[in-house]
Amino acid sequence: MRLTILGNNSALPAFGRHPTAQALSVWGELLLIDCGEATQIQMQRYGLRWRHLHHIFISHLHGDHYFGLPGLINSMSLLGRTAPLHLYAPAELLPIIQQIQDVAETVLTYPFHFHPLPSDATQIVDNEYFTVKSFPVEHRIPCYGFLFTSKTRGRKIIPHKCREYEIPRYFYERLKKGEDYEKQDGTIVKNEWVTEEGPHPQTYAYCADTIFTDSFVEHIRGVDLLYHECTYLEKDADKASARFHSTAKQAAQVASMAGVKQLLLGHYSSKYRDLEPFQQEAAVIFPNVLASVEGTSYDI
Amino acid sequence: MRLTILGNNSALPAFGRHPTAQALSVWGELLLIDCGEATQIQMQRYGLRWRHLHHIFISHLHGDHYFGLPGLINSMSLLGRTAPLHLYAPAELLPIIQQIQDVAETVLTYPFHFHPLPSDATQIVDNEYFTVKSFPVEHRIPCYGFLFTSKTRGRKIIPHKCREYEIPRYFYERLKKGEDYEKQDGTIVKNEWVTEEGPHPQTYAYCADTIFTDSFVEHIRGVDLLYHECTYLEKDADKASARFHSTAKQAAQVASMAGVKQLLLGHYSSKYRDLEPFQQEAAVIFPNVLASVEGTSYDI
Repeated sequence: MRLTILGNNSALPAFGRHPTAQALSVWGELLLIDCGEATQIQMQRYGLRWRHLHHIFISHLHGDHYFGLPGLINSMSLLGRTAPLHLYAPAELLPIIQQIQDVAETVLTYPFHFHPLPSDATQIVDNEYFTVKSFPVEHRIPCYGFLFTSKTRGRKIIPHKCREYEIPRYFYERLKKGEDYEKQDGTIVKNEWVTEEGPHPQTYAYCADTIFTDSFVEHIRGVDLLYHECTYLEKDADKASARFHSTAKQAAQVASMAGVKQLLLGHYSSKYRDLEPFQQEAAVIFPNVLASVEGTSYDI
Repeated sequence: MRLTILGNNSALPAFGRHPTAQALSVWGELLLIDCGEATQIQMQRYGLRWRHLHHIFISHLHGDHYFGLPGLINSMSLLGRTAPLHLYAPAELLPIIQQIQDVAETVLTYPFHFHPLPSDATQIVDNEYFTVKSFPVEHRIPCYGFLFTSKTRGRKIIPHKCREYEIPRYFYERLKKGEDYEKQDGTIVKNEWVTEEGPHPQTYAYCADTIFTDSFVEHIRGVDLLYHECTYLEKDADKASARFHSTAKQAAQVASMAGVKQLLLGHYSSKYRDLEPFQQEAAVIFPNVLASVEGTSYDI
């Protein structure tokens, strides 16, 4: 998996930082997580293609997390998209989108599937490539985090071994599933001679906007990468709790409690120009931390 | 008056061009005309301050003309704006904005006044500095153009003459209104000795998205500057009429019929990278034409 940060500022765009949007690449599929204003322009800027995008996840209905969505939905239709699009979001978003399309007399060129987020932690996607689980976090309005888990694609081919045993290309998919190969002379090539264990599933947890809490730690335990908001530094902890946001220190405490492998920070308030203090504050508690930078991709 | 182009592309952002938004400066007041996605970011980029913005005009409810509005409304509130904001737009926009604010539990910090556009040509603003008239144009959905007329601020002071006759500063406002000044010794200073004729009212007409038609020519006759869309070049005239848009040639024909002083082109389709052909095509019919460039300001 590979995560590209398209926007990592809180509500007000500032210092060239945009409102929240992230693109997660999983086995060539592109998943969009939140969609702040100008996300379609950010996707163009960073070379992310809509043809790989079939799933969009919206955490909550504060504008800085979805005001780019109506434009993106329209633009894909104007370009004649035919592939289905699945939108996972709080139920109240659907009538807004419908009303926007009704007044414009918009008829989309592609199938559009809306999936309202369940209020409790639930697996909302399970396909060949990944699963997604949504879970409630604690914000001023209903808000959800997402846990993305890539699926293993079976055992890993060892190309030179396959050539040595003269296994034809068409059989590789069956090798990945663990099958042995029988040659024309009846000789058996054991699967473990020509493959090795495939990559482990990878996990990415996105915790949206949330006050400091351990209430969702069970859902993100041990993930490879955790994105946790840190709208403020600890010196503004009063502002953070009053507005149902977190500080960098609190993000690190959640990462530590959940025993995650790496922590990525973001959703910075526009009152801060420099990001270095966020990383420094968190690193005291959780050393394996990065302050996300817009336009940067992180391998998971 | 001074017009700054914040976005001049049609629906799809392309080649660094944004969807439609314009800022018109009139006697220090800033008027926003349409508000495509990322307008708040464009305003930051070009140094336009929200504290001078009290009036927003939305021509119609295709997303590329208003998807930046919810974010702008929110951001001004997050920054604690207290000055009133007046929004002039098709009536159907109000419930959309209300729904967006309801689901976010947004309470604006400033008075927000919504003025639905009347279906017929009507003067919708008349204040100390300017008047605005809206008039229907012809598009796929109800769509309106706007005629902006600056008011003269009275006669123009000739500073060195006023000093010569020892007229005190506080009396300047009355001089502008045409009054004579009486000195303490009873001597009369005639108004025409210390002032000259003030600037004429200036006029700017914005014709939004429209198919080629002469139906609104009466409303824009003789204006100082006309902005007319040219989504296409004449070679794509069939696309233009099918989609209720115009070509550069047709925009020039309207400018010519209306006898305007200058024509400004925009709302380019994303299929065109170069803008030069738009200007060339229009100039054959109407020589005093400019193809608008994003980020550029035009004095009227």
